[in-house]
Amino acid sequence: MKKEYKIDETAACQFKNRAGYCVGTGRMGLALQKEYQEQLKLVQEHIGFKYIRGHGIFSDDMGIYQEYEDENGKIIPEYNFTYLDRVMDSYQEMKIKPFLELGFMPQKMAGGEQTVFYWRGNVTPPKSYKAWTDMVQAVLNHLIERYGRDEAVSWPIEVWNEPNLSIFWKDADMEEYFSLFRHTFRAVKEVDEQFQVGGPSICGVDDVNWLRQFLDYCSRNNLMPDFFTRHHYMWSEPVKEGRYSYGKLRDPQEAMEELKVSRTIIDSFRQYQNLPMYITEFNTSYSPDSPVHDSVQNASYVAWLLSRMGEVCDGYSYWTFGDVFEENGVPFSQFHGGFGLVANGAVPKPSFWVFAFFKNLQGRRVHLSDEAVVVQKEDGSYCGVAWNLSFGKQEPLDIELALPCKPGANFCFLQKLVDEEHGNPVKLWHDMGEPSNPSKEQLALLREGAAPWLLTKRLAEEEGYVTAALHLKQDAVVYFELRETEVCSDRGYHIISLNK
Amino acid sequence: MKKEYKIDETAACQFKNRAGYCVGTGRMGLALQKEYQEQLKLVQEHIGFKYIRGHGIFSDDMGIYQEYEDENGKIIPEYNFTYLDRVMDSYQEMKIKPFLELGFMPQKMAGGEQTVFYWRGNVTPPKSYKAWTDMVQAVLNHLIERYGRDEAVSWPIEVWNEPNLSIFWKDADMEEYFSLFRHTFRAVKEVDEQFQVGGPSICGVDDVNWLRQFLDYCSRNNLMPDFFTRHHYMWSEPVKEGRYSYGKLRDPQEAMEELKVSRTIIDSFRQYQNLPMYITEFNTSYSPDSPVHDSVQNASYVAWLLSRMGEVCDGYSYWTFGDVFEENGVPFSQFHGGFGLVANGAVPKPSFWVFAFFKNLQGRRVHLSDEAVVVQKEDGSYCGVAWNLSFGKQEPLDIELALPCKPGANFCFLQKLVDEEHGNPVKLWHDMGEPSNPSKEQLALLREGAAPWLLTKRLAEEEGYVTAALHLKQDAVVYFELRETEVCSDRGYHIISLNK
Amino acid sequence: MKKEYKIDETAACQFKNRAGYCVGTGRMGLALQKEYQEQLKLVQEHIGFKYIRGHGIFSDDMGIYQEYEDENGKIIPEYNFTYLDRVMDSYQEMKIKPFLELGFMPQKMAGGEQTVFYWRGNVTPPKSYKAWTDMVQAVLNHLIERYGRDEAVSWPIEVWNEPNLSIFWKDADMEEYFSLFRHTFRAVKEVDEQFQVGGPSICGVDDVNWLRQFLDYCSRNNLMPDFFTRHHYMWSEPVKEGRYSYGKLRDPQEAMEELKVSRTIIDSFRQYQNLPMYITEFNTSYSPDSPVHDSVQNASYVAWLLSRMGEVCDGYSYWTFGDVFEENGVPFSQFHGGFGLVANGAVPKPSFWVFAFFKNLQGRRVHLSDEAVVVQKEDGSYCGVAWNLSFGKQEPLDIELALPCKPGANFCFLQKLVDEEHGNPVKLWHDMGEPSNPSKEQLALLREGAAPWLLTKRLAEEEGYVTAALHLKQDAVVYFELRETEVCSDRGYHIISLNK
Amino acid sequence: MKKEYKIDETAACQFKNRAGYCVGTGRMGLALQKEYQEQLKLVQEHIGFKYIRGHGIFSDDMGIYQEYEDENGKIIPEYNFTYLDRVMDSYQEMKIKPFLELGFMPQKMAGGEQTVFYWRGNVTPPKSYKAWTDMVQAVLNHLIERYGRDEAVSWPIEVWNEPNLSIFWKDADMEEYFSLFRHTFRAVKEVDEQFQVGGPSICGVDDVNWLRQFLDYCSRNNLMPDFFTRHHYMWSEPVKEGRYSYGKLRDPQEAMEELKVSRTIIDSFRQYQNLPMYITEFNTSYSPDSPVHDSVQNASYVAWLLSRMGEVCDGYSYWTFGDVFEENGVPFSQFHGGFGLVANGAVPKPSFWVFAFFKNLQGRRVHLSDEAVVVQKEDGSYCGVAWNLSFGKQEPLDIELALPCKPGANFCFLQKLVDEEHGNPVKLWHDMGEPSNPSKEQLALLREGAAPWLLTKRLAEEEGYVTAALHLKQDAVVYFELRETEVCSDRGYHIISLNK
Repeated sequence: MKKEYKIDETAACQFKNRAGYCVGTGRMGLALQKEYQEQLKLVQEHIGFKYIRGHGIFSDDMGIYQEYEDENGKIIPEYNFTYLDRVMDSYQEMKIKPFLELGFMPQKMAGGEQTVFYWRGNVTPPKSYKAWTDMVQAVLNHLIERYGRDEAVSWPIEVWNEPNLSIFWKDADMEEYFSLFRHTFRAVKEVDEQFQVGGPSICGVDDVNWLRQFLDYCSRNNLMPDFFTRHHYMWSEPVKEGRYSYGKLRDPQEAMEELKVSRTIIDSFRQYQNLPMYITEFNTSYSPDSPVHDSVQNASYVAWLLSRMGEVCDGYSYWTFGDVFEENGVPFSQFHGGFGLVANGAVPKPSFWVFAFFKNLQGRRVHLSDEAVVVQKEDGSYCGVAWNLSFGKQEPLDIELALPCKPGANFCFLQKLVDEEHGNPVKLWHDMGEPSNPSKEQLALLREGAAPWLLTKRLAEEEGYVTAALHLKQDAVVYFELRETEVCSDRGYHIISLNK
Repeated sequence: MKKEYKIDETAACQFKNRAGYCVGTGRMGLALQKEYQEQLKLVQEHIGFKYIRGHGIFSDDMGIYQEYEDENGKIIPEYNFTYLDRVMDSYQEMKIKPFLELGFMPQKMAGGEQTVFYWRGNVTPPKSYKAWTDMVQAVLNHLIERYGRDEAVSWPIEVWNEPNLSIFWKDADMEEYFSLFRHTFRAVKEVDEQFQVGGPSICGVDDVNWLRQFLDYCSRNNLMPDFFTRHHYMWSEPVKEGRYSYGKLRDPQEAMEELKVSRTIIDSFRQYQNLPMYITEFNTSYSPDSPVHDSVQNASYVAWLLSRMGEVCDGYSYWTFGDVFEENGVPFSQFHGGFGLVANGAVPKPSFWVFAFFKNLQGRRVHLSDEAVVVQKEDGSYCGVAWNLSFGKQEPLDIELALPCKPGANFCFLQKLVDEEHGNPVKLWHDMGEPSNPSKEQLALLREGAAPWLLTKRLAEEEGYVTAALHLKQDAVVYFELRETEVCSDRGYHIISLNK
Repeated sequence: MKKEYKIDETAACQFKNRAGYCVGTGRMGLALQKEYQEQLKLVQEHIGFKYIRGHGIFSDDMGIYQEYEDENGKIIPEYNFTYLDRVMDSYQEMKIKPFLELGFMPQKMAGGEQTVFYWRGNVTPPKSYKAWTDMVQAVLNHLIERYGRDEAVSWPIEVWNEPNLSIFWKDADMEEYFSLFRHTFRAVKEVDEQFQVGGPSICGVDDVNWLRQFLDYCSRNNLMPDFFTRHHYMWSEPVKEGRYSYGKLRDPQEAMEELKVSRTIIDSFRQYQNLPMYITEFNTSYSPDSPVHDSVQNASYVAWLLSRMGEVCDGYSYWTFGDVFEENGVPFSQFHGGFGLVANGAVPKPSFWVFAFFKNLQGRRVHLSDEAVVVQKEDGSYCGVAWNLSFGKQEPLDIELALPCKPGANFCFLQKLVDEEHGNPVKLWHDMGEPSNPSKEQLALLREGAAPWLLTKRLAEEEGYVTAALHLKQDAVVYFELRETEVCSDRGYHIISLNK
Repeated sequence: MKKEYKIDETAACQFKNRAGYCVGTGRMGLALQKEYQEQLKLVQEHIGFKYIRGHGIFSDDMGIYQEYEDENGKIIPEYNFTYLDRVMDSYQEMKIKPFLELGFMPQKMAGGEQTVFYWRGNVTPPKSYKAWTDMVQAVLNHLIERYGRDEAVSWPIEVWNEPNLSIFWKDADMEEYFSLFRHTFRAVKEVDEQFQVGGPSICGVDDVNWLRQFLDYCSRNNLMPDFFTRHHYMWSEPVKEGRYSYGKLRDPQEAMEELKVSRTIIDSFRQYQNLPMYITEFNTSYSPDSPVHDSVQNASYVAWLLSRMGEVCDGYSYWTFGDVFEENGVPFSQFHGGFGLVANGAVPKPSFWVFAFFKNLQGRRVHLSDEAVVVQKEDGSYCGVAWNLSFGKQEPLDIELALPCKPGANFCFLQKLVDEEHGNPVKLWHDMGEPSNPSKEQLALLREGAAPWLLTKRLAEEEGYVTAALHLKQDAVVYFELRETEVCSDRGYHIISLNK
C-alpha cells in the first residue's frame, strides 16, 4: 500500500500528546524488588513518565496497618511506614510521582475475607470507615511531612480500583463504593484541600450506568471531585490455551467512542464540565498472560492509540511499565505475555519504543492520519511517528510525507525503526529456543537485539518541500525527524562510503 | 556474486587466530587521559586484547628520567615512576599487559636534538649507553617490585621503533641501532633471564637487508633474541588533500608474501628457526589522517587479513585501539581518519567489530576462502565471519555454507551484520552534517548507530547438512553462529509473529 | 584493667578461623529485594562469606511448586524456577554459594495448615513424600543444569529447620522428621552422590536427646549424612517491652560446653566420628527485635565467640547478614534490634566489623586469651583482634602485646577501632532523635559515622620484641596489624606534623 | 587554653562566606587526565565550587591555535577546539564554570622564546595583537555557540597571570601588559558586552605601584573593567631542602592589610568604586613542593582565612583543587607538598574538609573570633567551624559556646573533627613508610583514614542557652552543628549503650 501526503501547515494545531503522563505498575509491594527498580530505571531514562499508578498500597505486604493490645486489652492501631517510605524514596530517585490509588483493604481492617489475585488483595469494605479514614489521613500526613507539602499535594488520589467488578469490590456494591468514596474524599480534603481526588476508576462493564450514578451521587452529596477516571482495554473473543490468553484486537476507532460517551456524561453535569478525565489503565488485552503484549502488533496498535487518545481525555496510563507482576502468580518464562513495556532482565519490548518515540513529539501537529502523526517543533524541525497497523494483513506500507521548507534547505533525515526484525526481542528469544530463564549471556543478546534500527539520509528541498519516504513492513513503527543542517566538512575530509 | 560451499570436516585444522593477541596505542603519556581509558575500556569489554604496544615510555611527558646536581655539583640521575605506575596500574585494571617498546630518548640523555611527531619524541642515540641501560634496568626492577616478578617477566620487550626510517632513528644508522639493541638486550637479561626481548621493529623499507644484517649481527655477537618483529601496512599511491591522506589498498595476498620472505630469512639462521615473529604494527594506511580507517572498506579488508595472517606469524597488533593519538597534532574533528578501532566519544568503528567477531572464532577451522572463515567449537556449534571485500566494486555477495550435522537437528542461526547502513557511525555523522565536536546528545546517537544488526532465524537439517545463507552488501562483514537447539515453549505459549 | 602478654612463638598453631564460612539470611523470597541485595553487596565487599543459609526456598512467595488440572481433570505438578533462578543468579554475582536449607512446605503440598512467622511458612509434613522428593529432585536437577554440576554439588544441603521446636515442625514430631530426613537424603543422593547432605538442624531445646536419637536413626537405617548441624544462641532471662526484647548474655565459655557435648555425642558413633559439625545459626539473642544486636556489646561478645568457636566445630553461620527480615513483620524503625550485621540503608553495625576484622586473621595463632587473638601471617606480619567484653562493667582495658621480631626492625602499627564513639551508628542515630525512616541525608551521616577509627603509629624493636599497646574502652573491639617497614622519604621530604 | 563565649544574637550580620566561589587548577591541558577528573569529582561532590581558574588555555598542549599554508603560500590561521570542548564539557558535567584566564601565548603566535614551568608556557607578547584578538574572539564565539550565550557570558574573563613577575611576562613589561589588556578587553566586549572582563592578576610584588598604574591606564583609556584581581600568599623565609620547600606562615591579620590597601586603591578611582575585587589565587606557600600543604597546620590556617577574607574581597580561589599539577615537573611521590585540596588517588587532605565545612556556613553570623565562626541558619539551627591555629605551639584549645535557645529545647550536637589523628592521611602515609606510589590497597587505606571523626551528643537548654563544648588539639579544625530535636523512640526501644 502506498500513501502520499502533502502537509498543509496552516491546518496545524497543538498535538494533545499525553504519552508521558502516567504508567501502570504491579502492586506497590513489588516496588521493593531489585528487578522492578531496574526496569523502572530503563523506562525513566528512555521515556520519563510523570506519574505511576498501581494497586496495593494498603495490602498487607506493605505492612502499613498494624494493631497492638495495650495494657488494658484495648486494640490500638499503629502505622508502619518503613516500606512505604522505601518505595516513595525510590520513586523520588527515579523522578516519578505516585498517582495514589487507595486500596485494597488491610486484612485486620477488612469487613470480609474475599480476596483478588495470587497475592490476595482483600476487596471488602472496612469494618469501620473511621479506621479507614484514620489510616488514609495518617498516611497523607506522613507523606507531607517526609516529602514536603508542595510535593505531596501534587500526587493525585484515586479511590479504589474497578468497583464495578465484583472481583475487585465485594458484590460490585455501588452504594457501598459511593460511601467509601464520600468518606475518603472528605478525609483527604481535611488533610489538605489542595489534594486532587477522583474516581470512580471503572472499567468498561456497565460503565455508563456506574458513571451516571456516581456523578449523580457526588452531585447530591455536594462532592466536587477534581477529576474522573475510567479504564480502556481493546480485547475481544478471549480464548485460553495452557497458561496463556489469546483474543482479538477491537477496532480502535470504535472503542474510542466509549471514551467519548464517558466524556459526554461528565459534561452533562454542569458543575463537572471540563473537569479532567483520566484513563487510569489502558492496554490491548486485559490479561497479564497475553502473548500479544510482547509483539510488534501491540506496538503498532498502541501507536494508533497514542496518536488519538489525547483528543478525548486528559491523561492515560499504559498498564504496565514492566513485567514484575504477580496477579496470576509468578510468570514461568522470560516472555509470558506480561503487560510490561519492559520484559524481565530489563529487555524493552516493541511497545516500549512507541512511548519513547511519542514522548518526543512535542509541538504543533501538522499531520494526523491512520498511519502517521507529525509535529513541528519550536526550532522548526519536524518529527513524527508512522505505523503499519496490520490486523494480520501481510502488506507493507509506503508513506511519502512532503513537508514545507525554505528554498535550498538541506536536511538530516533520521529514522528509528521497530519491526519484526528490529527491536523485537521476542522473536530473537523464540529463535534461541524460548529459554524460560535466559542466562546472563542470553539476556545480553536479547537486550542487544531490542534496539531499533537507526538509519539516516541526506535530503534536499524540492519545490518548497522536503519529502520523507518511509517503508514499513507489517506492524512496523518508525520514528523519524528532519532537521535542517548543512554538511561542514573539515578541510579535505571526504567520507569513504558507497554513496560517494 | 554467489558462492556456495559444502563443508568437508575432514579437512579441518586448528584456526591460527591471533585476533586477541595485541593492539597498538598512541604514546604512553596519553594513557593518562580519561578519554583514552574510556576507549580502552570499551575495547577490553568487547574484544579483550592480551597485550598493548605503543611508543614513548621514555619520552619526557612520562617524566621518568630526571637529574639533579648534588652538593658537589655532580649530576645524579634519578627516576620518577609516578606516571609510569599510573599507566601500568590502569593496564592491570583493564586486564591488558604492556608489550614494552623501549623508546624514545629522554631529552636530557639524548645525543642529539632530532625529534619526531607533534609531540617531539627524541630519536637520537643516548649520550651514554651506560645511562640508558641504567635507566632500562631501573625501570624493569621497579616493575618487578610493583607488579611481581611473574607478572613483569610476562611482558615482552622490543627495542625501539622502525630504526630503518631516519625519522625514527637518526640517519637510520644501522650499526648504531645494533649497538643499542646489544646493550639493551644484555641489560634486560641481566635483570632477569626470563624477560622475552626482541627486535628490530622494522617497517617495509629496505626490510630484507635490515633483517638479514640484524640476524647476522645477533649471530656474530652471540645474542639470542626471543622473538623478531616487523610492521605491515597495506597502502600505496598516497595523496594528500587538505588535512587528510588518501590512497589505494594493496592486494592483500601479494603483501602477505613480504611477511613470508621475512619468515624465510629468519629460518635461514639455524639458531633462530621457529622463533616467534610478531607483526608489532599493521593497518591499511600508515597515516593517522586517512578516512579509510573510519570506513566499512577498512573493516572488510581487515577481515581478510585476520583470516590469514596467523599462518605467517605468531602475533599481530592492529595500530591502534583508539583515536586518542597526537602524532600529527590534535585531531580537528570527530572522525578524522584516525587509526583507532574506536573513535572519540567511545564510538566503535566498523573495524572494531571485526576484531570482536574474530575473537570468538576459537576452534577447528572447517572453512577458509577469500570470503569467509568458519570454525567449529568444542561444543559442536559453528561460528564464522564472512566479508565482501569490494575494492570499490558495488556488487553484493551471497554465500551459502552447507555445514554437516546430525539428522533431525534444529538450529538457531544468529548473525551480526556490519555494512554501510549498520554499525557504520561515520555515515550517520556525515548525514548529521559532520559536526567537529558532537554534543552529548549527538554522541549518544553515534553510539546507538554504531551497533551491528543482530538477526536470527531457525534452521533445520536437510540431507545431513544445515545451510547458512548470508547476504552481504558491498564491504559488509558478518559474524554468524549456528547452535543446535530445540524450541521448548511454555505450556500454551505461541509467539505472536509474522512468521507464525 | 591492664593485661601484658609476651608472645612465645613456639606455642603457635594454625588459627581455626571460620569467620568467613557462612552467614544467615532472611527467607529466600526477600533476596529479590533491592535493599537486601545492597546490604549483601556491602557484606561481600568487606567480609566475603563463602556460604549463605536461610529459610523458605519452598515457601509460596518463591512460587516453585505449582499444579494444574489437565484435560482429564488430573492434577499435574509443575515447577516454576523464575524466582529461584533470579535469587541464585544474584548469589553467583555476589560470589556467595547457598547452603540450601530444604523447607518449608508449599501450601498445596502441605498435610496441614500450621504456619510460622508473619510470612506464614507452612511447617507441616507433606501430604505425600513422593511429591516432596519429586520437587526436591526437580530443583536440584535444574540447579545442576543452570549452574553446572561441579558448582551445584558444592552447595551443602540441610533438611528443614529446628524440627525440635513445635513452632517449626508440627508437634516437634521426631519420627516424622526422621522420615522426612530419610526420604530427602535418599532423593538427593539419587540425583548426585556428591551432594553433601546433613541435619538435624536443632536448636538447644532437648538437643541431647534429639541428636542421639537422630544419630541412632541414621545408624539403624544405614544413612551416612555428610555433616551434622545445630544452632547456638546466647540469651537468657528474656523480657519484652513494647515491640522489643531484652535479656541477658550467657557466659560464653559455659555455652561452649553445649557444643562440646554435641561433638562428643557425634563422635560416640564410630561411623560418624570426625564428620563435620556446623553451627548453622548463632547469635547473642534469638529474637529479631533485640536492641543488643545493634550495639557494641554485641560486637565484643561476638569477638569472643569468633576467637574460640572454630575449636569445637567446622563452621558457623551468624544469623543474619542484614536487617531485611520479616519474621516478626516489617520493622517499624531504622534500628530495631534486627539480627543483621548491616542495618537498613546499608549501614554496618559494630558486629559487622568484627567479621571483617576476623576474616583477615589467616595464619598461625601466636596468642589467644579472653581479650585477644593474634596470628602471624606467611609474610611475617602480625595481625590480631582485641576486645573488652564488659558485661556492663565500665572499666577500660589496656593490653600490651610484646611480639618477637628481628633486631632493628621498624614497624607500621595500624589499628581499626570500634567502640561507643567509633563505628557505632546506633548512637549517632539515637542522638539524632531516632528517626524511624531517616532521610537520604541522615542515612549518609549514619554510614559516615559507621566507619571504625583508623590510626597508625611507628614502632621499633626493643630487646627482641615490638610491643603493641592497645587501649579499649568498654566493649571496644580493635583490629591491629604490625608490618615491618622502613620510612623511605623522597629527597628532602619531611612530614609537617606534631610529632616531628 | 580555654575560651568561653556567650553569643549575643543581636550583633549578628550576614556571614560573607565565599568558600564555594572559585578554586584553582593546574593548566587546562591536565583536565584531560582521568586522575584530574576523579579529584575534581570528589571536590565537587563534597564542596561544589562555582568557578575554576587556571593557566594555559592557549598553551600548545591544548592545540587551539594552528596555521597552514594555502595554495598561494599564505599562512592561514585555524582553530582546533577538540580539547577545549572536551575540557569544557567535563566542567559542565561537574557543574563547575571556568573563570577564564587568557594565556599563555601559542608558540606560533609568540613574539619570543621565553617560557615558564616544566610545561613551557610561552610568556612573551604576541607577534601581532590582531592574531591574538582574532583567536580570543574565535574561542569566545565558539563557546557561545556550543554552550549557549547565557551560559558563556556567565564565565568571567581575566587577562593573563601575574604580569608583574618577569617569569610570567617578559621583563614584567607594564606598558606591554596594558596594551595586551586594552586589546583583549575591547575584543571580548566586541563579541558580547555582557562578558565580565578584569585584571591585572598581580601577585604581591610591587603590587601597589602596578595596581595604581593599571587603574590609571584604564581610566585614561576609558576602559571600564568589570572587576579587579590579585593574588594572596602567606609565605616567608623560604628555604629549600632536596626537592622540597619550607618556610614560615605569615601573620594572617597583617597579610590581610595588603588586601585592604588594594581595595583602597581601587576605591580611590571614583568610577571603579565598589567594583568587585577577586583574589584569583591564594594559599599558604606559593610553591607546589611545600609539605605544609599536606598538613593540619595548613587546614587551621586556611580556616582562619576563610573566616575573614570575605570582608575584604568579593571572591577568592584556593590554589589549587588537586595535585595533578606539573609546574615543577611530575611529582615523585604520593604526598609532595602539592597545592591540592586532594592528593593523588583521590585522597582528601585536611584543608579539603575546611572548605567542605565552611561551604555549609550559610546564614547570619552570630560569632566571629580568632578561633571560631558560628552562623545561624534560616531553620534556626546553628553551625560553625572552630580551629586551633598553633603556629607550632603544642597547646590544646577548649572552647565553650553558649548559644541562645528556647526554654526546654533539646539538641543533637554533631561534630566533624580533623586533627593530627583524624582526617590526616599524610600521617598515615608516613607511618606506612612513605611509599612513593602506594598500591591500590594502600590508597584504599589512605582514603579510609582521610575521613574526619563524626561524633554526636545530646544537649539540653540551660538558662536560655545551649552550650557547645569543643576540644581541639593542636591545629585541629572542627565543624559542628546544633539542631533542635526530640528523641522519639519506637514503642519499647531503648538503645543499648554505655550512656544509658
